[in-house]
Amino acid sequence: MSQNKSFRGHKGGFRWADVELHAYKKEGSAPFKDITRQTLFGDENLSGELRYFEIAPGGYSSLERHEHVHAVVILHGTGRCLVGEEVRDIAPFDLVSIPPMTWHQFQAAPDKALGFLCMVDRERDRPQLPSAEDLERLCSTPAVAAFLRGIPAESN
Amino acid sequence: MSQNKSFRGHKGGFRWADVELHAYKKEGSAPFKDITRQTLFGDENLSGELRYFEIAPGGYSSLERHEHVHAVVILHGTGRCLVGEEVRDIAPFDLVSIPPMTWHQFQAAPDKALGFLCMVDRERDRPQLPSAEDLERLCSTPAVAAFLRGIPAESN
Repeated sequence: MSQNKSFRGHKGGFRWADVELHAYKKEGSAPFKDITRQTLFGDENLSGELRYFEIAPGGYSSLERHEHVHAVVILHGTGRCLVGEEVRDIAPFDLVSIPPMTWHQFQAAPDKALGFLCMVDRERDRPQLPSAEDLERLCSTPAVAAFLRGIPAESN
Repeated sequence: MSQNKSFRGHKGGFRWADVELHAYKKEGSAPFKDITRQTLFGDENLSGELRYFEIAPGGYSSLERHEHVHAVVILHGTGRCLVGEEVRDIAPFDLVSIPPMTWHQFQAAPDKALGFLCMVDRERDRPQLPSAEDLERLCSTPAVAAFLRGIPAESN
């Protein structure tokens, strides 16, 4: 992996020397839109892995949950985030923790990309997607229902 | 710990809600200058820990080595970094990996604070400080000797 190099310079635009740009997930594996992934640190000498995700304007990560925890630092842009039944606006350098088995999703603002770092354990379980029943339960909270329909907080 | 809160907002100036500001190390435990530490993420659900360090203009971290690995993302400011026998200028969003048992130090520019994230394993060994012999060996590389005397790269 590229992590063998001690110095990897930022090339601008949140791309790095010797860091590959990946699709967020395999196409069709889960609903998501306009998002890329770069693993900044992830090798056998570290228990954690640090990834950089970028969501294009209007894009979103998949709505999912898992046992492993996400530790997120917003780097640029604005957007919103669902964690359990809470919807929050997010802005640069805000911190977001996703506890175990908690439904979550990140959405970029309609007019601005959202870039963030996410620390996870290198060994982790696979994400679970919501069943129709899970979605129904989530949508019983009006703010969550509005978020999942992509309606900005202002018009809730 | 504060990590129980899912959202912790950035208050500006690289200070966060519910994140304590700490001295870098216990005073007198190692040579260092003008540096603070904030643990952004570090709880029993995560194998990794993510800390934010800020070095005031002209300050520096201690010269040390250890078995555990540092995974660093520069957030703001400029400065220099020693990793083994390499000295590099660092700027926002550059990535620095400190391999096991490798001497390293971060220095802020004389006129600018340097802020960076550092991911480590939550369980890790204690840093070792250089002996007089280690220092002598390090200083046999001219660029390293200049770095350790705080001489800017331009005048090497």
